[in-house]
Amino acid sequence: MLKVNRIHHVAVVVDDMEESLSFWRDALGLQMTELRDSPAEQVQIAFLPVAGSEIELVRPTSADSGLAKYLAKRGPGMHHICLETDDIEAMMMQLKAKGVRLINDTPRTGVDGRKYAFIHPESTGGVLVELYQL
Amino acid sequence: MLKVNRIHHVAVVVDDMEESLSFWRDALGLQMTELRDSPAEQVQIAFLPVAGSEIELVRPTSADSGLAKYLAKRGPGMHHICLETDDIEAMMMQLKAKGVRLINDTPRTGVDGRKYAFIHPESTGGVLVELYQL
Repeated sequence: MLKVNRIHHVAVVVDDMEESLSFWRDALGLQMTELRDSPAEQVQIAFLPVAGSEIELVRPTSADSGLAKYLAKRGPGMHHICLETDDIEAMMMQLKAKGVRLINDTPRTGVDGRKYAFIHPESTGGVLVELYQL
Repeated sequence: MLKVNRIHHVAVVVDDMEESLSFWRDALGLQMTELRDSPAEQVQIAFLPVAGSEIELVRPTSADSGLAKYLAKRGPGMHHICLETDDIEAMMMQLKAKGVRLINDTPRTGVDGRKYAFIHPESTGGVLVELYQL
């Protein structure tokens, strides 16, 4: 059976990055290693590693994206959990064989080369789960 | 400055434990180390460790608890993220000094001796954050 290696990150959707950082970085003491603008994905992301995982604060930078609509509808808060695996294609096959509904039928590739895909919350008990292969 | 050691767990509130386990354990391949009934907290909890963290599936076992009301109102999904620290009292002092609103003014102690406290989502950008000192 294929394995999940670790919780790669927990993504939090935020509407005000500075206000969010005043909690996660300044009050809680997490270190922010990068604040990245990603125009292709219409988001700004703050990366705050914690041991082998990461808190990612994600702010939509346009009003049209799916994430902006999610934020407008549901408010800020936890958005998804990302699990890292060594073989994303095989994991997706395994999930499909178990009747799990995937949002992406094949993995997508990020600008940094990582492969990723989302699992539909309908199959997970309401949690948006992302898979990563680095 | 005080430190967060790790993401101790991500808690997912579920309405059907067997259906949730069919995804997290049977399809995704996580190992369930314990399925615990906790009458004092009116919940059943499945523990699924992933590297140094854990997914915890939490099912309300009565209709009256706060968690049962949360589930009835918001549906199943991610409930909170728990961060481990070495000195919860000092961390709570630090948070208060930064104007962060806490749900628990002093740490509570679990049956297993761990200390815990919740931070109000109002101060975190919509995320219910729990602190642990083991």
